[in-house]
Amino acid sequence: MPYFDAASAVPLHPVARQALLASLDEGWADPARLHREGRRARMLLDAAREAAAEAVGCRPDELTFTTSGTRAVHTGVAGALAGRRRAGRHLIVSTVEHSCVLHAAESHEADGGEVTRVEVDRGGRVDASAFAAALREDTALACLQSANHEVGTLQPVAEVAGACREAGVPLLVDAAQSLAWGPVEGPWSLLAASAHKWGGPAGVGLLAVRKGVRFSAPGPSDDRESGRAPGFEDVPAVVAAAASLRAVRAEAAAEAARLRELTERIRARVPQLVADVEVVGDPVRRLPGTVTFSCLYVDGEALLHELDRTGFSVSSGSSCTSSTLVPSHVLKAMGVLSEGNVRVSLPPGTTEADVDAFLDALPDAVSRVRAQLGAPAGGDEAVAVPPAGTGSGTSEQEAVLVVDTLGRRCPIPVIELAKVIGDVPVGGLVRVLSDDEAARLDVPAWCEMRGQEYLGESPWPEGGTAYLVRRER
Amino acid sequence: MPYFDAASAVPLHPVARQALLASLDEGWADPARLHREGRRARMLLDAAREAAAEAVGCRPDELTFTTSGTRAVHTGVAGALAGRRRAGRHLIVSTVEHSCVLHAAESHEADGGEVTRVEVDRGGRVDASAFAAALREDTALACLQSANHEVGTLQPVAEVAGACREAGVPLLVDAAQSLAWGPVEGPWSLLAASAHKWGGPAGVGLLAVRKGVRFSAPGPSDDRESGRAPGFEDVPAVVAAAASLRAVRAEAAAEAARLRELTERIRARVPQLVADVEVVGDPVRRLPGTVTFSCLYVDGEALLHELDRTGFSVSSGSSCTSSTLVPSHVLKAMGVLSEGNVRVSLPPGTTEADVDAFLDALPDAVSRVRAQLGAPAGGDEAVAVPPAGTGSGTSEQEAVLVVDTLGRRCPIPVIELAKVIGDVPVGGLVRVLSDDEAARLDVPAWCEMRGQEYLGESPWPEGGTAYLVRRER
Repeated sequence: MPYFDAASAVPLHPVARQALLASLDEGWADPARLHREGRRARMLLDAAREAAAEAVGCRPDELTFTTSGTRAVHTGVAGALAGRRRAGRHLIVSTVEHSCVLHAAESHEADGGEVTRVEVDRGGRVDASAFAAALREDTALACLQSANHEVGTLQPVAEVAGACREAGVPLLVDAAQSLAWGPVEGPWSLLAASAHKWGGPAGVGLLAVRKGVRFSAPGPSDDRESGRAPGFEDVPAVVAAAASLRAVRAEAAAEAARLRELTERIRARVPQLVADVEVVGDPVRRLPGTVTFSCLYVDGEALLHELDRTGFSVSSGSSCTSSTLVPSHVLKAMGVLSEGNVRVSLPPGTTEADVDAFLDALPDAVSRVRAQLGAPAGGDEAVAVPPAGTGSGTSEQEAVLVVDTLGRRCPIPVIELAKVIGDVPVGGLVRVLSDDEAARLDVPAWCEMRGQEYLGESPWPEGGTAYLVRRER
Repeated sequence: MPYFDAASAVPLHPVARQALLASLDEGWADPARLHREGRRARMLLDAAREAAAEAVGCRPDELTFTTSGTRAVHTGVAGALAGRRRAGRHLIVSTVEHSCVLHAAESHEADGGEVTRVEVDRGGRVDASAFAAALREDTALACLQSANHEVGTLQPVAEVAGACREAGVPLLVDAAQSLAWGPVEGPWSLLAASAHKWGGPAGVGLLAVRKGVRFSAPGPSDDRESGRAPGFEDVPAVVAAAASLRAVRAEAAAEAARLRELTERIRARVPQLVADVEVVGDPVRRLPGTVTFSCLYVDGEALLHELDRTGFSVSSGSSCTSSTLVPSHVLKAMGVLSEGNVRVSLPPGTTEADVDAFLDALPDAVSRVRAQLGAPAGGDEAVAVPPAGTGSGTSEQEAVLVVDTLGRRCPIPVIELAKVIGDVPVGGLVRVLSDDEAARLDVPAWCEMRGQEYLGESPWPEGGTAYLVRRER
């Protein structure tokens, strides 16, 4: 049963398992204690720190073990902002950062700080010079991920780090998605990562803070982890995390090349196998194992369940957690279709046969979901009605076909739009009423994919939003 | 090699080990995901929450898994204070709380809040009515440990919780030391605990927040753990922690009775075997496995190393971590001798033979440390010189013997005092100069133990402090 959600978590690496078992016996005691059990735990912790620091490319005394990547980011952002408070309270992030970075930014705003969110292109990539242009006199900190977690796009971290260095602003790199593949290049100042992304156990994050970076850890602290991560250290988990990082790094180059071929195959084949699909993310500058696509007229969660029944575990940006139905902020920032979104992220060791089986299963899974939703088939929904004579301009006199999907979840609004677009003449207008947030992204994305003109949105008096579309073909 | 530092951490319980291994395979995925691996992790997490909630005595939806007991306390204190900000900003703690509670209180003060620290008796116990008397109109939160981590004294938690309930103030109970033995009685509002104290893995804490308690989690949060503990859940560790808690609870009554006999033996025998020892902590209302004593003329760290060489791992409140030499705030608050402090905390399963071997080894270990320090032998240091006629009153005319121990660490000040007390007549004065913080505790404690009169301290013009003692016998 292939598991294709490596960007979320991967199973424990065999090396990590071995290290964990050994250090459950040897490293359970308090490393702050002076007795032999404590000293043994301390030695294991120190050795793990050296190994992890080498993989990160920093000094051991610059590296703190935290209890998760999220905690590393929260502490890193708050600590750097507090340490640089004299410089100012301006924070820069990209719009496609992991939610833990965005939550930290919101927290900073709630506390009276100011945040600039740097936009990305349609591939999800930040422009290094646009990012640099956001740097100000009062910028205390900038944050940029090394690679995007939903679409796999690599960010120009080295260039941005260089610009930040020149401006005297520390850059925090969220390296959660890339650290397994190699160290982060460029003169970054802080770095955060998460062990369960590289086959380490959950419960271990890394926070590196370069010497010389002003840093003041938030909240109450203790003597542990240089005062940056209070609470009893989970030494066995830390040892396993460090061992796993070394192990995956040893295999990284070969495995990256292999996975890249497999994701390239998915990128190329999916649009051939399934109608009305948009593959998203930068086609070249991307992580080896991650590929993301969106399918018109498909409910992402339904497709995820359909694939799960067929034996494939993937993730969907259409409903990225089990507790929320808000479409992915990443797809939104990129301006691409969010409906029917599927992220395939291959764990190391994924076989060609698994990928081929997925490509075999996908078209039927999509068809089943589309059929359940009553979606138009074949993508030719707009050819039945001949173009009307001279329709142009959006005067108030023009007739507008209204499609009311208030109270109905995406992708219904787009499905209903597709069903009626053929009922208006070329040049004619359709107004889609929807109160599903995802429609804001999906109606324009549908227009771009189908060659129709999107004219904009306006609040609808009876609640929800009206999206106006002109038939172009 | 007996390990007697259970109050700090115990090895993984066999049941926890088994649960951990099983759930490393079954529970590594993200429990927020909808695919089968995610759902499996979610089921394990839910089951662990039910088991742990039952042991705590709360509803599953009141229980959050945190990454350590310290984190549970920090989040609990900050969250309750923020949630009750309208009531006021007054916080009550006892003086003998774990440092994580005191750090949270200091953080609150630094943020402009007010803290009342309720004192304890010489046994380390809070008086429930004194605690209740500290409650005010503007009290937002009160914190009391269920049992003290250094001396094992049980606190009157149920009575205090009742008084808090009456006053409409939530009580947070740090139950780290007692949860293995049973649920916390009384109408507490918040409870914190730590899994590695009961044979669970490190990296798991518990925070229970009763329904109806106003709570606003500090810092950035996410959807995990009811928004109270951001970051990817370590499901295998949580499962192991819950399994271990059930297992130790099943054995708790029998094991408590057994360990209580063993610590009772230590309490009784140590003062017979070693001269000038003070057993500290409440003799009756105490944890089953913890016993603490202090030895005059002994450096706690040296004794700890001496015992470690002999094969016994204990902890010392004289130097409670490897990174600090400040004497324990607990012993200080109790007003008992801090020098030569040893905490023996027996893990479940400790044998009678281990305890007897310890009692065999202790006298020699103490003697060796005392000999190294040149301490007076036998406790009869003051009998050589006959009493002087009529000495009484501290007039300026009286001759004062000055003992200068500036720059020398405890227990040297007390050792030098003991050496010269026989050189002054009964009624005569000795002034001890010291710049070691521990002397403030140890000189009065020595006087009480030796039947001499402690007259007080004053700043010494050349630095440090002068402690004045009158020979009484």
